[in-house]
Amino acid sequence: MTVIRRRKKRSRKGRVTVVGIGPGGVKHITTKAIEELRSADSIVGFDFYVGQVRSLIRPTAKIYSSGMGHEIDRASLALQLAARGKKVVVVSGGDPGIYGMAGPVIETAKKLGRKVDITIIPGVTAATASAAGLGAPLMTDFAVVSLSDLLVPRNRILERVRAALKGDFVLVLYNPQSQSRREPLRLVHKMLKKYRRPTTPVGIVTAYGRAGEKTTVTTLERMLDHEIGMESTILVGNSSTRMFDDKILTPRGYYLHK
Amino acid sequence: MTVIRRRKKRSRKGRVTVVGIGPGGVKHITTKAIEELRSADSIVGFDFYVGQVRSLIRPTAKIYSSGMGHEIDRASLALQLAARGKKVVVVSGGDPGIYGMAGPVIETAKKLGRKVDITIIPGVTAATASAAGLGAPLMTDFAVVSLSDLLVPRNRILERVRAALKGDFVLVLYNPQSQSRREPLRLVHKMLKKYRRPTTPVGIVTAYGRAGEKTTVTTLERMLDHEIGMESTILVGNSSTRMFDDKILTPRGYYLHK
Repeated sequence: MTVIRRRKKRSRKGRVTVVGIGPGGVKHITTKAIEELRSADSIVGFDFYVGQVRSLIRPTAKIYSSGMGHEIDRASLALQLAARGKKVVVVSGGDPGIYGMAGPVIETAKKLGRKVDITIIPGVTAATASAAGLGAPLMTDFAVVSLSDLLVPRNRILERVRAALKGDFVLVLYNPQSQSRREPLRLVHKMLKKYRRPTTPVGIVTAYGRAGEKTTVTTLERMLDHEIGMESTILVGNSSTRMFDDKILTPRGYYLHK
Repeated sequence: MTVIRRRKKRSRKGRVTVVGIGPGGVKHITTKAIEELRSADSIVGFDFYVGQVRSLIRPTAKIYSSGMGHEIDRASLALQLAARGKKVVVVSGGDPGIYGMAGPVIETAKKLGRKVDITIIPGVTAATASAAGLGAPLMTDFAVVSLSDLLVPRNRILERVRAALKGDFVLVLYNPQSQSRREPLRLVHKMLKKYRRPTTPVGIVTAYGRAGEKTTVTTLERMLDHEIGMESTILVGNSSTRMFDDKILTPRGYYLHK
């Protein structure tokens, strides 16, 4: 099956738009995302993210915010509201397609057999925001792995990390740990040490673009000595990654070709 | 060595800000990027990208735009202007840290020993923009590989692709081919067919957010039957990726846990 789509018109019925608000605050949000937030009559989202874009939501919009987790409940609610003719925006942190709400909304529509217009608006994801805070660590090929073992078996996470290390990818670790989930990061750290030098540059970026933003440039050896939490992203260099002043750089080889 | 940085103040001297303008047009650019473009007195960039944000540049700013390639010349010019006290913005397509201008600017500063304030402003990269156009193909771990063999040996590209396939990553292929460079994509396609079913969903997104935007949902088997060019990004599903209506979905397993 092959489907080729060009720009399509939206129907006048209800619809769900899943909007990525970027890493935080209102500075790293796109014009398109702002427009969608402003035109929504119903807003659905995790209260932490909804709070960050409150100033962009029109006062008459109805807000359905809730605590962490509950992705499927939020997706179902959004689809129900759209079926009733509402213009619904689902607020998603970072980019909605990277461990965000794009998946749950489309999965739930599939599951429920709902025919609703679903549009995804991309945002700045933690990988690129963190890289920007650190310098240029992702200038060569990289792999993104979430360490959350809530929905993915721990062994599969470790196998993915091993494959990425064998391919000499720069590694970006999302959801590295929480207060109650510390074991996956410890296991991954052990594996990292098998394949990479102890001096490999590691960057830890927490709360990029928000109050409390913190950027740590360290080494693989000392990685676990630092504060790492729910709002942190970790970047682990590959064999060619270097430190330069307070920045991390993975050269793409321009100077080899001059 | 460990360096911990909190938000820093900028010096009043010249500086270089490398700004990601997202996938194209002015809709998917962030507020922060717009602010930086508006406050620059010197703009350096590839003319195709500078043209896209011309309306956001103040009329008195001096524009130094040039043709494709020339990354190191652009970086050197930006650093020179900054050393003369200018507020320079280097315009980078997508996100500057993903095969963009963040690397060349920092590499060149290192090479020349220039002490200039360098700041990177992240943008929406092609991986997430393309994913948004396709549905939710990146809801599980993924690897990003550039097929440009200009700066990276072809064998290393193929080894990276093989490692990503062994790790069952969803694959995002940047710079898949140009008129004069068609061989790497053909070699990669051969390798993809060794590791993935012929019915594996493949998405090809060209010129996302710009005139001529085109989204193709197809299969690994038929991938090369479609138009693929310099402005295309290709996403290749993993073992769990599925098609749903005209969308591509890699489920993260929410429904296994309900």
